[in-house]
Amino acid sequence: MLTGGGDCPGLNAVIRAVVRRAHGYGDGVIGFRDGWRGPIENDVEALTLEAVRGILPQGGTILGSSRTNPFKRDDGVDLVRRALEAHSLDGLIAIGGEDTLGAAAKLFDAGVNVVGVPKTIDNDLGGTDMTFGFDTAVQVATEAIDRLHTTAESHNRIMILEVMGRHAGWIAMHSGLAGGADVILVPERPFDIDEVCARLERRFARGRHFAIVVVSEGALPSGGDIEAVGAQTDEFGHARLGGIGPRLEQEIGQRTGYETRATVLGHIQRGGTPTAFDRVLATRLGLAAMEAAHDGRWGTMASLRSTRIEMVALADAVAQLRVLSDEDLRIADALLE
Amino acid sequence: MLTGGGDCPGLNAVIRAVVRRAHGYGDGVIGFRDGWRGPIENDVEALTLEAVRGILPQGGTILGSSRTNPFKRDDGVDLVRRALEAHSLDGLIAIGGEDTLGAAAKLFDAGVNVVGVPKTIDNDLGGTDMTFGFDTAVQVATEAIDRLHTTAESHNRIMILEVMGRHAGWIAMHSGLAGGADVILVPERPFDIDEVCARLERRFARGRHFAIVVVSEGALPSGGDIEAVGAQTDEFGHARLGGIGPRLEQEIGQRTGYETRATVLGHIQRGGTPTAFDRVLATRLGLAAMEAAHDGRWGTMASLRSTRIEMVALADAVAQLRVLSDEDLRIADALLE
Amino acid sequence: MLTGGGDCPGLNAVIRAVVRRAHGYGDGVIGFRDGWRGPIENDVEALTLEAVRGILPQGGTILGSSRTNPFKRDDGVDLVRRALEAHSLDGLIAIGGEDTLGAAAKLFDAGVNVVGVPKTIDNDLGGTDMTFGFDTAVQVATEAIDRLHTTAESHNRIMILEVMGRHAGWIAMHSGLAGGADVILVPERPFDIDEVCARLERRFARGRHFAIVVVSEGALPSGGDIEAVGAQTDEFGHARLGGIGPRLEQEIGQRTGYETRATVLGHIQRGGTPTAFDRVLATRLGLAAMEAAHDGRWGTMASLRSTRIEMVALADAVAQLRVLSDEDLRIADALLE
Amino acid sequence: MLTGGGDCPGLNAVIRAVVRRAHGYGDGVIGFRDGWRGPIENDVEALTLEAVRGILPQGGTILGSSRTNPFKRDDGVDLVRRALEAHSLDGLIAIGGEDTLGAAAKLFDAGVNVVGVPKTIDNDLGGTDMTFGFDTAVQVATEAIDRLHTTAESHNRIMILEVMGRHAGWIAMHSGLAGGADVILVPERPFDIDEVCARLERRFARGRHFAIVVVSEGALPSGGDIEAVGAQTDEFGHARLGGIGPRLEQEIGQRTGYETRATVLGHIQRGGTPTAFDRVLATRLGLAAMEAAHDGRWGTMASLRSTRIEMVALADAVAQLRVLSDEDLRIADALLE
Repeated sequence: MLTGGGDCPGLNAVIRAVVRRAHGYGDGVIGFRDGWRGPIENDVEALTLEAVRGILPQGGTILGSSRTNPFKRDDGVDLVRRALEAHSLDGLIAIGGEDTLGAAAKLFDAGVNVVGVPKTIDNDLGGTDMTFGFDTAVQVATEAIDRLHTTAESHNRIMILEVMGRHAGWIAMHSGLAGGADVILVPERPFDIDEVCARLERRFARGRHFAIVVVSEGALPSGGDIEAVGAQTDEFGHARLGGIGPRLEQEIGQRTGYETRATVLGHIQRGGTPTAFDRVLATRLGLAAMEAAHDGRWGTMASLRSTRIEMVALADAVAQLRVLSDEDLRIADALLE
Repeated sequence: MLTGGGDCPGLNAVIRAVVRRAHGYGDGVIGFRDGWRGPIENDVEALTLEAVRGILPQGGTILGSSRTNPFKRDDGVDLVRRALEAHSLDGLIAIGGEDTLGAAAKLFDAGVNVVGVPKTIDNDLGGTDMTFGFDTAVQVATEAIDRLHTTAESHNRIMILEVMGRHAGWIAMHSGLAGGADVILVPERPFDIDEVCARLERRFARGRHFAIVVVSEGALPSGGDIEAVGAQTDEFGHARLGGIGPRLEQEIGQRTGYETRATVLGHIQRGGTPTAFDRVLATRLGLAAMEAAHDGRWGTMASLRSTRIEMVALADAVAQLRVLSDEDLRIADALLE
Repeated sequence: MLTGGGDCPGLNAVIRAVVRRAHGYGDGVIGFRDGWRGPIENDVEALTLEAVRGILPQGGTILGSSRTNPFKRDDGVDLVRRALEAHSLDGLIAIGGEDTLGAAAKLFDAGVNVVGVPKTIDNDLGGTDMTFGFDTAVQVATEAIDRLHTTAESHNRIMILEVMGRHAGWIAMHSGLAGGADVILVPERPFDIDEVCARLERRFARGRHFAIVVVSEGALPSGGDIEAVGAQTDEFGHARLGGIGPRLEQEIGQRTGYETRATVLGHIQRGGTPTAFDRVLATRLGLAAMEAAHDGRWGTMASLRSTRIEMVALADAVAQLRVLSDEDLRIADALLE
Repeated sequence: MLTGGGDCPGLNAVIRAVVRRAHGYGDGVIGFRDGWRGPIENDVEALTLEAVRGILPQGGTILGSSRTNPFKRDDGVDLVRRALEAHSLDGLIAIGGEDTLGAAAKLFDAGVNVVGVPKTIDNDLGGTDMTFGFDTAVQVATEAIDRLHTTAESHNRIMILEVMGRHAGWIAMHSGLAGGADVILVPERPFDIDEVCARLERRFARGRHFAIVVVSEGALPSGGDIEAVGAQTDEFGHARLGGIGPRLEQEIGQRTGYETRATVLGHIQRGGTPTAFDRVLATRLGLAAMEAAHDGRWGTMASLRSTRIEMVALADAVAQLRVLSDEDLRIADALLE
């Protein structure tokens, strides 16, 4: 088993479920450290029942993570294969996002036995209704909006909250709906800054002297009227300060004349104890992945379909990004006062 | 619009969504007070945009609730019909559980225009993947388990948590999985007290000197070895002190000799601010219900199906209770150490 | 070092601070397991920097606890003395409440080197402005009241919350003030059930159709009009189900005719992660205790005095219980509508 | 009554307590809107029992706030005096920080009847042990540190958290202690960037591959080795993006070679529901202020002294800032591994 990419609340719940299920089967399981770096450098640790005790409510991953990609080096596939042989493993459970599962799918094509577990805080992986970690991120962002509301209202201000989401606006949309945001800006629909400001001014004209704007780090203006600044991201794709939120603070403040303040939520969204929802989802995915591995159903990925966990083809799963549909976007519009 | 039955985090989010959507259409909407008592006694209040401001994060229902049932009196249907006419209403949006929606379905059969929104903290309504309020209840119960864990561990104790769930064990199962409970007892599978104690003793024998038991208020012993005590419930079906939790405390304590303590979570599960998940789900259901009402799709109920909200037949929705399947029950077993 | 009595959020923060401070001095420190049982049975564990890593946010105590009292056996003092000699210890840091510190004071009189750290969730120890754990208990109880408010309001009910506090009403008073309770009943002032009901009826007569009552487990009626039932408590003095809360539910419900529901918060108050306040207070007390032990200031106890931590005489500290003053009781009265 | 300066969790609790206490006395009370702008522009609102219902758990201030200073205009004092006369007021209760209370003290010198209530999220007002709002800010910051810990640990990173505190490091110190930060940088002690990096490198050398740095917005480097950048602040003294946190991210990242990420917590610290501690403190201060106003003890300020609320001279209260003492600073040092 390995965990790759950015960390995500619920990773430890997956690890615990895999280990407990394996124990029930009488199967052995070991952990590779720091994503694909583990098999490549043959860095492993034992995963006993004792090793996974008490980790269910903990954020992060006890296995560590990295952005190492076995296909970025010529001998990568061989090294992974050799690591599996060295420890007499039947196969590998890879927990990760687009990159990790993409590598897993290619390894499977190259004959390596792999089962995948989808993981992304952004909720934009195809092949599953939802990914764990997303609910926690939305909850953290919603609590931040709840807090910003009172300070916005007391000071007659526009408060901007920049949340995660490079390619998809799931976190912005859900936390915006849950927090009662007045404007929600997402990557799926480039925004017109004039229209945004006009909407805010109409709100103020109606006697509502504060507003909340939630913006995905990857949201972009539609035209050339403000410089197209995407979020700066680091090697894990995490947002960096200085992205779209602060840029909007400047633009909206200058154009409307209202006091405007941006907050960039950053890594707080992806750390810490998972919500109950994420713990349950992660646990169920881990159980299903281990069952598939035990049964030799390689090349599959555990997936949430309605209320059930099903195994889908690993290749299909990473085929395309799951973004907000037009219908999803209409929800926010329908709530406008 | 009316809200019936026990209260549930997210009710106000539904109300707000209906009012905002109606405003977008240019439709008027009023609220009946205290469930079916409202139309029967013609007790109404205006639901303007102003009336629903700031209610999104609030628990409870601004419309009040009751257990009044129009079919428990001869003139009930007539009174509801007359109330709709008195206010020149095209139809009624009824938000509630089995009883409220059952009455709504019968009213529809009697020719009254009704749209339903499913509501139950227990998550046991058919026709929808999930009901709002459930996620909040699970989150509250999970946080309680997290807290009980440390006190159980420090004092070498068995801690029992009794949660809601008269006919279905959804809250017990999900909070038990999320909190890492060692034993989960639900109404769907009568338990053998000897087996429960044996499992706890095996755990202690393995050197784990504490345990967490989560039990639904409606869980029952399988045989005659302990007196079959169901939970005592009030007119809203809420658990009362003195039910299965304290009974288990006594039985398990006496049989195993371990110190055992029960906590009955009670109404804390159903009050207070909804989770982000419940706010989003409730908002989406409210929007869909108002859209159906606007379009005259009477006799339907808003329902979560995978990631989409769909309208289903109101009659089908209340046809049968949604309980834990054998597969759901196997999940808890699969996690046993 | 040892921790005695009921567990309390912040115990691990004290342990961590003592170990880190000792490390800074170059002093060694070991932990006795399960309170006074540790030295009596010579059951110890090493307390290295590694052993206390990550425990700051955790509830409970890594050393375990018990109600063992060295003065309940003839050879108790000798066994403690021998345990200290066996491990070449200069002295003992005892973290606990009335019983643990009472034993510590007597041991000091018998010539054993002891430093105390006050601990009680009830906040009723003399010699210090406040004890750690109390703030967490009040926060948990306040969040419960916030949740009960919405369900009380939606259903026109009287909600009763029974909280900890056998001899002093600090938790009831502070959570009652913070949660906006309408009636607060504490051990310091026996209550007249007729007066309580009259007050609730006046509130309903003013058009407020719900009420919140917070009651300490140790609160008692003043006269013979309802049977004087104190809370049932276990060997740690923890409240048991069936105490004053459910008793009041019955009495108030019957006398007023309003729907009345009791919740007994129980062990949830004393488990789980401590508030920031409690972590800081516990850390500061631990540092001061270790400094006193290093300097040989035996027979003292770390104490919060205004904003400073001071060492006070251990004997004085346990001389008398700190209860609510008349002035404290007046605060609740002054807030009545 | 008026509330001035930046908002602070607990303001509404003060307002509610004043109104309820006044009601008990049979005194009338009105609210001036938006701080000193209210009396200057004679903008008032009624403060009935009904007006303050349900506001106890709410952040912000129902009276609004501003930075208007009556001494910044020639007729300011006259306008305030005239506003009091216009409404036949005996005096004014001013709730605010250094600026608001400074103006209040000068007004008192000019013969206006004023009572003060201290308010600052930074906890740096003289004359009181603690200010309300501070505990909430520390709790929010501590929860952020708890979340950053897991992501820091999973990715072998240095995480920097910038918190409020222009002139005093109370929030950084308390949240840093509560969250187990490895480095705490405060305005009271200029830091040496080389020393900070050396400490982090020693930590990594000991095998601990992550670290948490908490920094006050007003912390400054001691020498010329990095450009002296204080936090950018707006008219309310709130931190702006682009201050010391992101600056440290760059410096520490470059100097140590470790991945380093900054988060600026911003307005989330000052909004939202107050902790139980802050609600109780704010309530007690409000009661005492109203009692002083009723008794005509003008020129005083309500103050927390150990466990009691006392009235102190308003002039003394704003005489000097309360900053971290050398002893407070030693606490963080004493905890170093």
